[in-house]
Amino acid sequence: MKDEAFFKENQLTHEMIYDGKVLHVCKDKISLPNGRTSYREYCLHNGAVAVVALTDKNEIICVRQYRYAIGRVTTEIPAGKLDYKEEDPTEAALRELREETGYRCGKITHIGDLCTSPAIVSEIIHMYLAEELTPGDTDPDEDECLELVTYPAAELKRMIIDGEIQDSKTQAAVLKVCAIKGI
Amino acid sequence: MKDEAFFKENQLTHEMIYDGKVLHVCKDKISLPNGRTSYREYCLHNGAVAVVALTDKNEIICVRQYRYAIGRVTTEIPAGKLDYKEEDPTEAALRELREETGYRCGKITHIGDLCTSPAIVSEIIHMYLAEELTPGDTDPDEDECLELVTYPAAELKRMIIDGEIQDSKTQAAVLKVCAIKGI
Repeated sequence: MKDEAFFKENQLTHEMIYDGKVLHVCKDKISLPNGRTSYREYCLHNGAVAVVALTDKNEIICVRQYRYAIGRVTTEIPAGKLDYKEEDPTEAALRELREETGYRCGKITHIGDLCTSPAIVSEIIHMYLAEELTPGDTDPDEDECLELVTYPAAELKRMIIDGEIQDSKTQAAVLKVCAIKGI
Repeated sequence: MKDEAFFKENQLTHEMIYDGKVLHVCKDKISLPNGRTSYREYCLHNGAVAVVALTDKNEIICVRQYRYAIGRVTTEIPAGKLDYKEEDPTEAALRELREETGYRCGKITHIGDLCTSPAIVSEIIHMYLAEELTPGDTDPDEDECLELVTYPAAELKRMIIDGEIQDSKTQAAVLKVCAIKGI
């Protein structure tokens, strides 16, 4: 396989187009490996976490919510942004699980990272499997309106394969956990 | 399960912050179901396609390329943006497969859609399984610098489970195809 120098794009100029609350949009002029120049528009993102919360009965806790950017209600695994770029992702995963679902867990395992849309967003989602769950009170963010729904893992896998779940982190993390657990 | 009215966020104002070549960034004031108001920052995206190209020997064709937004080389399945919002995604999938890998296919099957990051981007990737492959010449875009790499499907699945592949569409689509094909 070729080394990075074959591909690497180098920054010539950097412009922050929009520095919003959630989105930080940049436009950089770059040099391509073939000597040409081009532009890259992209969003900076602090990163996020997502959690497959698996009960002792092989059920997975999901969250239904309205996603304004795509204009519909989705079914997703619990997830949330890092509070700041250097936040420990395991701590963030435990917090988001607790805030969105109320569940605490006795065991949490990192199951890999997900670049949601590497052509346009720097976002990396740290994915976790949470086990040994104990229910408790939820504490959603002020502008979150959530409904918890629980599915047998095998049923959620079928819904993903049949195209009923669109969210990328939910598809990837649940299929990973099912493969790991032989579900 | 609760119906959409329980969750729905309604647009109060709409502002196009940045109308770029690839990114189209909006900031809308919205009303929440609880009566409060908030803002949503998001990127409009025309949509894209991604293709799991599976050979007769159960190998999957991947593409290595530099992803400037995340600052590294990735291994991904062939993919690309729709040329315009109403483009037929199956036609786009056949085109991107041909341009990036040179392969034509005798059979193409839609295997579901992927919302890459539904909190911030409207992007939907239409995912396909391409079979009955015939090699041919590639025709990459002017500013694409690609390397083809082929993996046995079972090996690519292992790389995904072990966290060696970060791209969301590659994780989701390959794990789906492996589940469908019993790999």
